[in-house]
Amino acid sequence: MTLTDNAYAVIMAGGSGTRFWPLSRSDRPKQFLSLGPDERSLLRGTAERIWDLIPAERTFVVTSELLRGQVEAQLPELGPSQILAEPVGRNTAPCIGWAAAHIRRLDPNAVITVLPADHYIGNTEAYVDTLRQGLEAATHGDYVTIGIRPTRAETGYGYIEVGSELDPGVFRARRFVEKPNRQRAEQFVASGAFLWNSGMFFFLASRILDAIDQHLPGLGKQLQAYDEAAKSGDEDALVQKTYGELPAVSIDHGIMEKVDSVSVVPGSFDWSDLGSWTSAWELSPQDAEQNVLPEGGIAIDARGNYAWAPEGKLVSLVGVEGLVVVDSGDALLVIPRERAQDVREIVEALRDRGDKRK
Amino acid sequence: MTLTDNAYAVIMAGGSGTRFWPLSRSDRPKQFLSLGPDERSLLRGTAERIWDLIPAERTFVVTSELLRGQVEAQLPELGPSQILAEPVGRNTAPCIGWAAAHIRRLDPNAVITVLPADHYIGNTEAYVDTLRQGLEAATHGDYVTIGIRPTRAETGYGYIEVGSELDPGVFRARRFVEKPNRQRAEQFVASGAFLWNSGMFFFLASRILDAIDQHLPGLGKQLQAYDEAAKSGDEDALVQKTYGELPAVSIDHGIMEKVDSVSVVPGSFDWSDLGSWTSAWELSPQDAEQNVLPEGGIAIDARGNYAWAPEGKLVSLVGVEGLVVVDSGDALLVIPRERAQDVREIVEALRDRGDKRK
Repeated sequence: MTLTDNAYAVIMAGGSGTRFWPLSRSDRPKQFLSLGPDERSLLRGTAERIWDLIPAERTFVVTSELLRGQVEAQLPELGPSQILAEPVGRNTAPCIGWAAAHIRRLDPNAVITVLPADHYIGNTEAYVDTLRQGLEAATHGDYVTIGIRPTRAETGYGYIEVGSELDPGVFRARRFVEKPNRQRAEQFVASGAFLWNSGMFFFLASRILDAIDQHLPGLGKQLQAYDEAAKSGDEDALVQKTYGELPAVSIDHGIMEKVDSVSVVPGSFDWSDLGSWTSAWELSPQDAEQNVLPEGGIAIDARGNYAWAPEGKLVSLVGVEGLVVVDSGDALLVIPRERAQDVREIVEALRDRGDKRK
Repeated sequence: MTLTDNAYAVIMAGGSGTRFWPLSRSDRPKQFLSLGPDERSLLRGTAERIWDLIPAERTFVVTSELLRGQVEAQLPELGPSQILAEPVGRNTAPCIGWAAAHIRRLDPNAVITVLPADHYIGNTEAYVDTLRQGLEAATHGDYVTIGIRPTRAETGYGYIEVGSELDPGVFRARRFVEKPNRQRAEQFVASGAFLWNSGMFFFLASRILDAIDQHLPGLGKQLQAYDEAAKSGDEDALVQKTYGELPAVSIDHGIMEKVDSVSVVPGSFDWSDLGSWTSAWELSPQDAEQNVLPEGGIAIDARGNYAWAPEGKLVSLVGVEGLVVVDSGDALLVIPRERAQDVREIVEALRDRGDKRK
């Protein structure tokens, strides 16, 4: 039995972020969009990359009831039982625990890679190599994460401090650090001992469920109840009834920071969590004046702008600098790049007035 | 016979400006658009205002072949013979001369007001009073123009120096001055002796044709040929054949600056020639932060912006100042207010690449 016969992928695609408004909406979050240079949606790209290593029939997607239809449409390769729709989002620990329980029933020796559906990956070959390393390390029983070599003192990411090398390319993760301030971020990068926390994990299904039993016993108990209910075909009903009661805790806080030995595989591929329109600008091909414009767009005395518009629409920017201009068809946004995070204020205003375009 | 039985209106609606791109296009110039606070198109507003004084059946529109259909659609009150379509634009002297010749054939005693179709008028009552005064003065044989009391040292307008009062509210126009530089404009405004040249005129049809014969004899000769051809129903063919050869000269340069006695009626209504998107911003109702937004628009930390979008589209501006944002459906423009004139650079770029959205 080779490594990959027991390897499973879990893609987390339940997010409902607002940071790419007006293109993303609460009912069309960014994992379903094409952002950056890839013409595929982020979800589709995530699936196709992992399928170089793990076949579609061993790929599972956790999403929400609201988004299930869009997952089915974008990943027709998956059977209905491969899409786990949460009745309500409860952060990553319940999401991953539920998927791990589901997979362990199919294969008690399963080793799982957990991947967010909405990240940018720049170099598929290097990425797949890293996944292979991570899966192999996890097969030996490690809790494994991918750390990205930082290219700047980013304050929007968590960091992982790297310890001694355990195996070639696999290191002890000494500790997880929350999003630092500017000064700490600069120290981290200067030290060379810190990596960005990518939110990608590997572990044996049995190991992560053991860890949940130990560190999040309430969640563990409920997952055992799901296993029991599954035997009599009653899991769906129980999930519907109880999922909302699961502790809303992240896998980082709830498990990875608590277990004894976490390993980290440094990834040397380009990566971004696509946190805002600024990331889309950074990652997209820019013209000589650092503008990113739809095909046929016109920029005159304009620098460092990012524009998105429906296909065929003519975007023309004159004498403006550092703007994000997004036309989603039914809504238009103009905001300085450095304020791109503030689109959430618009989404809140829309929510307050009951506008469906949130 | 009262004054108005011989009064005729000529609306000049042949312009093809690009300054309201992307809303205006070479085949949909600004006279057909609603700009500023009035929901009617500028052309429709111009016609309805003059109809308070002169009936629709004595209103003529000079336009181009390309635009004739849009004039018919917006002014269904007019018969086909009331729309004069120039085969090609030759500036205002031929346009006004042709219309005057046409009207003199109908009524040798006609007194004409000539009005641009694409101006903003703020106070209809004061405006109609001024028109009445102008027509009355013209009935006595004067060449009459309306001068607008300047509210700022505008360098985008021509000025008229005002002389002695001839009749109550009617003054000698001492001279016409081209668009001045900032310093001269400030002097003009400070002196109190200068008015903006509104481009609105009044004269007897016979008087303006006499002046054309004298000062633009080539044009005069051709207009006489049109009169001759009209007798045998051959005017259209002759116009088609020869209109392009008429001298392309403005009524200001060609006639008004040359005739002995021009009178000016100071107008005390709000007026703008709507020279750019900046004018639309100035004239439209602004919120407390001086933004002009479509209904339902959202402005957060945004000041002094003008936005236009198709009905129902949500426009949201965050942290931007002094921008013009125009979404015409098939094209999107973002430009600082103070550079609004530079939209012509985009139109030129589109023309160069053969894009029909010019």
